[in-house]
Amino acid sequence: MDGINRQWVVARRPQREGMCLERECFGRQEDDIPEPDDGQILIRNIYFACEPLVHAWVRGVPGKIDPLPIGSPFKGHAGGHVVASKNPSFKVGDAVHGNLDWADYSLSDGTDESGSPLQRAPEGYSLETGMVTLGMSGLCAYIGMFDIGQPKPGDTVVVSGAAGGIGVIAGQIAKLAGARVIGIAGGPEKCTHLVGEVGYDAAVDYKNEDVTSRLSELAPEGVNVFFDNVGGEILDSVLVNLAPYGRIVVCGGISGYDQPGLGIHNHMVLAQRNGTMRGFWYSDHAGRYAEGIARLGGWLKDGSIKEVLDIAEGFDVVPEAACGVFSGANTGKQLVRIAKDSSV
Amino acid sequence: MDGINRQWVVARRPQREGMCLERECFGRQEDDIPEPDDGQILIRNIYFACEPLVHAWVRGVPGKIDPLPIGSPFKGHAGGHVVASKNPSFKVGDAVHGNLDWADYSLSDGTDESGSPLQRAPEGYSLETGMVTLGMSGLCAYIGMFDIGQPKPGDTVVVSGAAGGIGVIAGQIAKLAGARVIGIAGGPEKCTHLVGEVGYDAAVDYKNEDVTSRLSELAPEGVNVFFDNVGGEILDSVLVNLAPYGRIVVCGGISGYDQPGLGIHNHMVLAQRNGTMRGFWYSDHAGRYAEGIARLGGWLKDGSIKEVLDIAEGFDVVPEAACGVFSGANTGKQLVRIAKDSSV
Repeated sequence: MDGINRQWVVARRPQREGMCLERECFGRQEDDIPEPDDGQILIRNIYFACEPLVHAWVRGVPGKIDPLPIGSPFKGHAGGHVVASKNPSFKVGDAVHGNLDWADYSLSDGTDESGSPLQRAPEGYSLETGMVTLGMSGLCAYIGMFDIGQPKPGDTVVVSGAAGGIGVIAGQIAKLAGARVIGIAGGPEKCTHLVGEVGYDAAVDYKNEDVTSRLSELAPEGVNVFFDNVGGEILDSVLVNLAPYGRIVVCGGISGYDQPGLGIHNHMVLAQRNGTMRGFWYSDHAGRYAEGIARLGGWLKDGSIKEVLDIAEGFDVVPEAACGVFSGANTGKQLVRIAKDSSV
Repeated sequence: MDGINRQWVVARRPQREGMCLERECFGRQEDDIPEPDDGQILIRNIYFACEPLVHAWVRGVPGKIDPLPIGSPFKGHAGGHVVASKNPSFKVGDAVHGNLDWADYSLSDGTDESGSPLQRAPEGYSLETGMVTLGMSGLCAYIGMFDIGQPKPGDTVVVSGAAGGIGVIAGQIAKLAGARVIGIAGGPEKCTHLVGEVGYDAAVDYKNEDVTSRLSELAPEGVNVFFDNVGGEILDSVLVNLAPYGRIVVCGGISGYDQPGLGIHNHMVLAQRNGTMRGFWYSDHAGRYAEGIARLGGWLKDGSIKEVLDIAEGFDVVPEAACGVFSGANTGKQLVRIAKDSSV
């Protein structure tokens, strides 16, 4: 296929104190568009999804993800359309996504860079919905909230990173379970959006409010379920406000990715309140995807939940968009659209 | 009753950086031996049990224990014999224990300073066994290990504070559940004792060994259950070695009582390994005491477990013994015997 394949590559590891991803980690190169071999497909990527986990490809997660070599293609969650296929399971036009090279074009044998099967946007949904609400963000929210947190009607549920890709869904589905839902987010705009648009009952602005005392006002009986995407000081603040037999879902720890030295100091509250803190790793729960996709899809269609996307435009803005997730620049899922459609 | 009633009183709060109990927190006074009113009993205390929780009476635990006023009688776990009774439920000679004034003599209406009923040493067991292995230490180990940790045959179980009052029992009953048990304790003497006398399969000396790397050698498949009495750096070291779906029992956090600033830094391992950290507050599980006492008593009688006591002698050594628990001075449960028998 004629044309140029723009690619992001791993230029270096993060170097500044306490930073887990930096603009300078991204290098760029151009190459010919590759040709699929037998069994392969060529994907024209349309979206890159900026998950916080993107830092793991640069730094590694022990036992889970090996860091990419310097100079190799940058990888992350990407989705697009099949534009050439020598694999009978895929036809031109199929919408697929998974962990792929962050490039205009990716080759695949039907699996992604994690060794998982490429996922398809479910019939009747857009590529971006397949990647986000019916993909990793929605399924993390679904598995974490329902399998781990298990809110009951009348419970008070708190979500941190509430305006992030996972948080906006986690809060909405906790409401569907009959809980009262409080979000923690950074800045008055996000908090207004959470209550006015997303349907949270209340929101705490951690950049301008004392989270511990605000939560004690908003949840005087304590927090029954805490869905945590943040860790650090915010986790400590919720621990202080944990209800007896409260349950903390460890989904992410974005504060600690950049500042691992912060730590948490109130874990003994778990003893005092008979509390539980339980984590989960998304891809170890693949057996739950089908149910999650079916239920989340139904709620999207009947308007019970809404999708919140923050779409940046253009291949050039990828480093800024990816790094911005760690400073909370996004409201809803951060995507970068690198092409308008599947044409070359 | 003629004689003098020696009493420890709360002389001051801890004042030195990072100390939760100090020798200077203990003041002393003498008074007449009190007379029981109608409904009361007079107890001649024989033993004080130095639980780490003793610091809570001086500093408080939010929502659980209010700190004692300065100048008021020091309280803690004490046991002795009834020497005068105006309560039909108790007769002279009964062996009872609970949270009482740390004095030669305590008055009680049948409840202790926490509002709980006085406990009796079960028929056929000594007062000290009733206070320790069939009391708070044994029941914390029983509830924490079986209800919270739930080791299965073949699991690797790690116990921190393994040579402490709770730890020596927790390790022994995990062995009875069919687990391989590794203790973490301070100093070669304690470690030798744990393996040679208590029956631990292995022990790590945190004062002279790197806990993280030693555990990775001793538990290459990871730690399935961690019964934690310590918190802080040791908890972080075990988190690094947690097995997939590993379970952490938050029983105590003695390292953090004195150094709350340390914190823990590896809680995101819970997400990576699908791990659970769950705490429990002993007295909220009183419905489990009867079963625990029956089973622990049976194991004591048939020699399946042994009691490990560290008995200091004399009323004068109470402050040193109580503070020593926080530096790990004891091997087994730290008791202070303040009288030889129940005579005045």
